Amino acid sequence: MSYDPQNFHGLTWHDAAADFAEGKGSTRAYLERCLGAIAEKEETVRAFVVHDGQQARQAADASDARWKSGRPLSLIDGMPIGIKDLIETKDFPTQMGCKAYEGNFPRRDSAMVQALKQAGAIILGKTVTTELGQSEPGPTTNPWDATRTPGGSSSGTAAAVAAGMVPAAIGTQVGGSIIRPAAFCGNVALKPSQGGIHRGERQGSSQSTAGVHANSYEDMWQVAIEIASRTGGDPGMLGLMGPSVPPQPARPERIAVLETEGWTALRDSERAAFEAMLERIRKLGIPVLRRADHPWIEALERIAAQGKAVTNAIVGFENRWSLLNLEENHPGGLSARALARLRASEALSTEDYRIALTLRDEMRAAMARLAPLVDALIAPAAPGIAPVWDPAAPEAAKNPRPTGDIACNAATSVLGVPCVTLPVLAVDGMPLGVQLIGQMHQDARTTAMAQWLFARL
Amino acid sequence: MSYDPQNFHGLTWHDAAADFAEGKGSTRAYLERCLGAIAEKEETVRAFVVHDGQQARQAADASDARWKSGRPLSLIDGMPIGIKDLIETKDFPTQMGCKAYEGNFPRRDSAMVQALKQAGAIILGKTVTTELGQSEPGPTTNPWDATRTPGGSSSGTAAAVAAGMVPAAIGTQVGGSIIRPAAFCGNVALKPSQGGIHRGERQGSSQSTAGVHANSYEDMWQVAIEIASRTGGDPGMLGLMGPSVPPQPARPERIAVLETEGWTALRDSERAAFEAMLERIRKLGIPVLRRADHPWIEALERIAAQGKAVTNAIVGFENRWSLLNLEENHPGGLSARALARLRASEALSTEDYRIALTLRDEMRAAMARLAPLVDALIAPAAPGIAPVWDPAAPEAAKNPRPTGDIACNAATSVLGVPCVTLPVLAVDGMPLGVQLIGQMHQDARTTAMAQWLFARL
Repeated sequence: MSYDPQNFHGLTWHDAAADFAEGKGSTRAYLERCLGAIAEKEETVRAFVVHDGQQARQAADASDARWKSGRPLSLIDGMPIGIKDLIETKDFPTQMGCKAYEGNFPRRDSAMVQALKQAGAIILGKTVTTELGQSEPGPTTNPWDATRTPGGSSSGTAAAVAAGMVPAAIGTQVGGSIIRPAAFCGNVALKPSQGGIHRGERQGSSQSTAGVHANSYEDMWQVAIEIASRTGGDPGMLGLMGPSVPPQPARPERIAVLETEGWTALRDSERAAFEAMLERIRKLGIPVLRRADHPWIEALERIAAQGKAVTNAIVGFENRWSLLNLEENHPGGLSARALARLRASEALSTEDYRIALTLRDEMRAAMARLAPLVDALIAPAAPGIAPVWDPAAPEAAKNPRPTGDIACNAATSVLGVPCVTLPVLAVDGMPLGVQLIGQMHQDARTTAMAQWLFARL
Repeated sequence: MSYDPQNFHGLTWHDAAADFAEGKGSTRAYLERCLGAIAEKEETVRAFVVHDGQQARQAADASDARWKSGRPLSLIDGMPIGIKDLIETKDFPTQMGCKAYEGNFPRRDSAMVQALKQAGAIILGKTVTTELGQSEPGPTTNPWDATRTPGGSSSGTAAAVAAGMVPAAIGTQVGGSIIRPAAFCGNVALKPSQGGIHRGERQGSSQSTAGVHANSYEDMWQVAIEIASRTGGDPGMLGLMGPSVPPQPARPERIAVLETEGWTALRDSERAAFEAMLERIRKLGIPVLRRADHPWIEALERIAAQGKAVTNAIVGFENRWSLLNLEENHPGGLSARALARLRASEALSTEDYRIALTLRDEMRAAMARLAPLVDALIAPAAPGIAPVWDPAAPEAAKNPRPTGDIACNAATSVLGVPCVTLPVLAVDGMPLGVQLIGQMHQDARTTAMAQWLFARL
């Protein structure tokens, strides 16, 4: 199976929902398509930790009754959704890809899950995450090539959407965990402005952001806004705001390339594909600025080159407290990779953390300065196509990042601004996503520009 | 027992620690004093949910060995401390004063507890909180008059310190839960700048702040800075910063009165005591501005009059998600008061919440504007002395706030600025604390000014 952005049409919801509103089709039939895809592909893809078709069928039938009576709870009433297994759900355990959490079943719905249920969405199951959202991979494979990683940490989220098992799924990102797997799997995805979607009570990470994978911008936006309009963002944050239906596509007037730390890792064929895309954008009459074109862009690149260091310091320090408890309470419950990270984080002082936080502020200021210059930045969403991942290979144990490198995503995570993927490139038959990066709280406009560009690339 | 601020000397640590450093006394003997106070008073005061004297004795002996070898872990090595039962501790259950959490024993140390242990402090036990930090009172009585409330929600924290059971204890405040019980019990207490002390992973409330009760400014500061220097503040926050030993007392040049919503609730005798204190401050040569003296002060008072409304909207909306889970999972596990609050919070929309958040921003801007005008604000720390609380009284069930009203604390909680109590007033033999309110991140300076004033009032 070879990825062709021109001809790939993933499973979408918004068009089906338009039918439901006219009394055609049923959410139950839609669900059966999803369950069929799972039956067909899950043995290889392994996107779900757990799912429950029977429970979902009951929910779909209830949804159909609401559509038929002309009273759907929302535009996503009856939509089957996957939830990353870091997020608590009442009906499924939350095991976080971590032995120490085996059997953890708090029977609580995180705020975002409550919102999705209020909107009528069907929580079909929990999607595989790398261990605690860190580096240790789960069993999920890339739907486009089972010898390759789907990316992480939102591995199952990305794969389930790409494989047509669900039209949308929830992921989270602290260093690249929404955008990179979307790039590897050919999804559209939104990492909202920091705090845009309520992550629930556990807020131990100041850089984690919940977001949505889908096969269309319409579905991506609709899911995100159905949650945020009910829960707001993370506690104390205004959260994602924007139209209650998908924004209309909008033409960007000017954009700039953000190379990020990942630029030098791209192979020639990957960089050539990206440059060819830029040329197509220029032919649409949209100027594309480069770092040499303006000192503010160069200044952002220079500070963004600290993205990985800042992310590692912030995430390491913030995760330390919970990891120490896990280590003590669950001997053998953490992978060697997680323990190595914990030991590294113990070398960080409170001052190191504070310095990383102030660097984050400075990076955000450098980004905000570009607002009058360009409407958005564009960058590769990963430093190349999905790497081959063979856990049996001799060098596998030494690979610190089996689900791919955060080099293209660390800076954009630190910036806290909205990122939306464009699944427009293919290299060696694999997707290679591009990310459009907007200004803080410009989630709707960034989505609108991504959709405009996608339709023309 | 009548409270006399001139002659009350509560149990302090810093002077004892000076002895330990010189090889005099022992933390074990100090602990035995605490256990003696518990043996004597706990039957009436009921400050602790649970405590463990034997475990504490072992920890004290280990601390004494460190002091004797000249290698204490910190200046609070061996200090017995109480932890409010909202905060997770590995060695004790965390039941949050809530039936739904009966037996909850996650065996995790919250970040701040890890820091205290790293500093050598002894976690003596869990102090009583009102149910989930809300209104339903626990069994704790006021050490100065057992017919009165100790205040809440940090009821046991305040009472344990006032009764000499521990020299310091940890509380949390979302609407007044540190400062009001300190006012009722005659403690010094610090509610740090928002996010000043790491609250652990559960960060569902954007207005909750952890702080310290003690019987001296030295102990209050030392405990706070030992935590914050190890953990930083809440995730993403710089946290409490300042000297690693207590700041030197500092004279404020000018202060202003902040009346708050509580002003009109003060009885004549209480207001007269407060005004007499202001007169003593003026006699120290320190101008005391009133709301009529400057339009910026008047503007702050006017917006601060929305403190209760803003607090109730923010706290209600943010708590909704976890309370709904508790209600569903634990029928009968929430009090009638908690359920009434939950039902009220369900009337709040996401827009109501966002409006409250922006009002909070506006209140903070009005406060920041005063920085060049005065060094601090001064206000009653509660709208009167601790009320009589008789759960058997016929009207008790209808009392929405059995542990006292948040009228003097809601605004200062919303402002997110540091508040330090001055236990300088007594009315009818009961303490009536005063709060000194500094600018954001001026925790050390606010402490220094409070100590300077306390020594002269």
